Amino acid sequence: MRDILYLDYAAATPVDPRVRETVEPFFHERFGNPSSLHAMGEEASHAVQQAREIVAQFLQCRPDEILFTSGATESNNLAILGYARANQDKGKHIITTAIEHHSVLYAARALIDEGFDVTELPVSSEGLVDPAQLTDALRNDTILVSIGYANNEIGTIQPIREIHHALAKRKIFFHTDAVQAAGALTLDTGKLGVDALSLTSSKMYGPKGVGVLYVKKGTVLLPLMYGGGQQRGMRSGTEHVAGIVGFARALEISQQEKEHESQRLTSMRDRIIIELQRTFANMKVNGSREHRLPNNINVVLPGLDGEALVIYASQAGLMFSTGSACSTVEQDPSHVLRAIGRSEEEANSSIRITLGRTTKEQDIPRIIATLKDIAATLNVKR
Amino acid sequence: MRDILYLDYAAATPVDPRVRETVEPFFHERFGNPSSLHAMGEEASHAVQQAREIVAQFLQCRPDEILFTSGATESNNLAILGYARANQDKGKHIITTAIEHHSVLYAARALIDEGFDVTELPVSSEGLVDPAQLTDALRNDTILVSIGYANNEIGTIQPIREIHHALAKRKIFFHTDAVQAAGALTLDTGKLGVDALSLTSSKMYGPKGVGVLYVKKGTVLLPLMYGGGQQRGMRSGTEHVAGIVGFARALEISQQEKEHESQRLTSMRDRIIIELQRTFANMKVNGSREHRLPNNINVVLPGLDGEALVIYASQAGLMFSTGSACSTVEQDPSHVLRAIGRSEEEANSSIRITLGRTTKEQDIPRIIATLKDIAATLNVKR
Repeated sequence: MRDILYLDYAAATPVDPRVRETVEPFFHERFGNPSSLHAMGEEASHAVQQAREIVAQFLQCRPDEILFTSGATESNNLAILGYARANQDKGKHIITTAIEHHSVLYAARALIDEGFDVTELPVSSEGLVDPAQLTDALRNDTILVSIGYANNEIGTIQPIREIHHALAKRKIFFHTDAVQAAGALTLDTGKLGVDALSLTSSKMYGPKGVGVLYVKKGTVLLPLMYGGGQQRGMRSGTEHVAGIVGFARALEISQQEKEHESQRLTSMRDRIIIELQRTFANMKVNGSREHRLPNNINVVLPGLDGEALVIYASQAGLMFSTGSACSTVEQDPSHVLRAIGRSEEEANSSIRITLGRTTKEQDIPRIIATLKDIAATLNVKR
Repeated sequence: MRDILYLDYAAATPVDPRVRETVEPFFHERFGNPSSLHAMGEEASHAVQQAREIVAQFLQCRPDEILFTSGATESNNLAILGYARANQDKGKHIITTAIEHHSVLYAARALIDEGFDVTELPVSSEGLVDPAQLTDALRNDTILVSIGYANNEIGTIQPIREIHHALAKRKIFFHTDAVQAAGALTLDTGKLGVDALSLTSSKMYGPKGVGVLYVKKGTVLLPLMYGGGQQRGMRSGTEHVAGIVGFARALEISQQEKEHESQRLTSMRDRIIIELQRTFANMKVNGSREHRLPNNINVVLPGLDGEALVIYASQAGLMFSTGSACSTVEQDPSHVLRAIGRSEEEANSSIRITLGRTTKEQDIPRIIATLKDIAATLNVKR
């Protein structure tokens, strides 16, 4: 195999060397249980508290509004299942969108069995939620709205602040899955107007197995799991100290480099889209051109099989995805691409290239040339 | 502070250098998402599958009977909440014991709000469950029994095989929390006769943030969280590959060294107990002398304050615990010590010393001398 060119940063990121360095001592020296009374326990507990403060600073919230979880799936489930179950006396209607990550969508749908109603808002052909449509969907018994900040497949960025305004002064809990937005957009919870926000370390060059849920003070969540009462009883279980410390460091780095990195990625993204357009005349961009994550390229290459493209490209050393990253588990064509109006055929002809810290301008010719070669091979084969 | 002498292995273990070496490449090279279709995804997915096979081999079960979780709390909760919620049409009675870890006890109690009945079996003064008492407690609507293999505070080992027999041929789901037993006892699920078994990497010299739940094939569990459908839909969320691979390696090492290490620890444990007895005439051992984990020492030192002992000892470099590890969160005297008949005062005068891989025979004089000194200081202070 030729040198690997990794282009799947929306699916997973390597651990940044600076994060690894920060985390290292926690494996063999600073390995105490934060609940232990002795000095090593105290040291661990202090490290968790420090990490909490760093995270809170970037989210512009209080340290005790931060819960550490095992990742994005748990954060999203805790926000949705936890809030809905604890607050069902106020109402049993939930609103989300048709393009959410499955950890949001399926958590919401699971609540139907518990007597909830779920509205899945449609989106525009660019993947945008219309705040006016949200207002129309509100009912007296709506207690929870969960809308992703930026889509993991097509990179469309939602107008979170406007969506917050659409909820007007209604006391509706507003959650956003910010997993994909984290490296590029503001995470200031006050500016966004959200009551809960999910993040995961594994998409931010941090260690795997750790996530964050910001939850506004005073919110009651029913825990997903019970036990030692850590994290104010909302998330029991010994804190994953190395992961937590690594996440805080990863967030710090990503926030410091956000502006510069976003510009760099945006310029590469746009160049790749232009060159793809030049190479594949009938190519279509999935998602918004304007409201788009700096690192996301998702396109239909009509007549080509996305899965075959991914596999051939992988053999040539290029690692990217079809529509979604979860493709080995999920067999159906992307629900996101279908929701923005793509046909099943178009969805199956789509690929997602997501750029990241190691992507370089010089890589672009190889990306284009490889795709061109594969397309030629596939066309000949048909 | 003097050289640290860590004596709290039941609360947390350092990552074994051999595990660290195995895990290292997964941070920066082999960081793919196991659900990705490309070669790096495949490689990650293969690593998870290999780990699953290693774990299955030690548990004498099928690889697809292994679920990877975020740790012990999640494993215990998934077994109890997941089984009870999915099988409540068969009955709504659950049996557990008064000395379970809170992640078992509070999960079971949380089900009371969902209409379940929970029986908490008493234990003997040694902390042993009486299988005959279990048989007596069985009802027609009993669907789940959860009894810990070895207790985290007092180290008492339960007769799991006999407990299995006490369930006779009744189709009752039998779960055991094997978190503390893992390093010393057999994990052969067939021999034990269990339908589910929890383990955690963080107590086995593996990476933090990863646990295992063995669940017998054909069992239906309601997931705690929904999403990408990983792990047969029972535990969605991108697999924590580095943690999973590290856990498998840690399990492998611990199983290979189990016999030798158990003998070594048992001999040190017994010597410490004898020397403590010599130093503190009125000392009492908490838990069974015979059915006891090789690394567990839990004693009442009458008239002394356990918390003060822990804090003074910590200043002298010795890291051990009061009754339970979760003492900074839980303020009440240990429910385990109360259940074996200790008074509140005795519980508050108890300390737990747990030995591990780095403990050496030569450390014993320092342990005894330090405790003696502190006791003298505390007695003078009174």
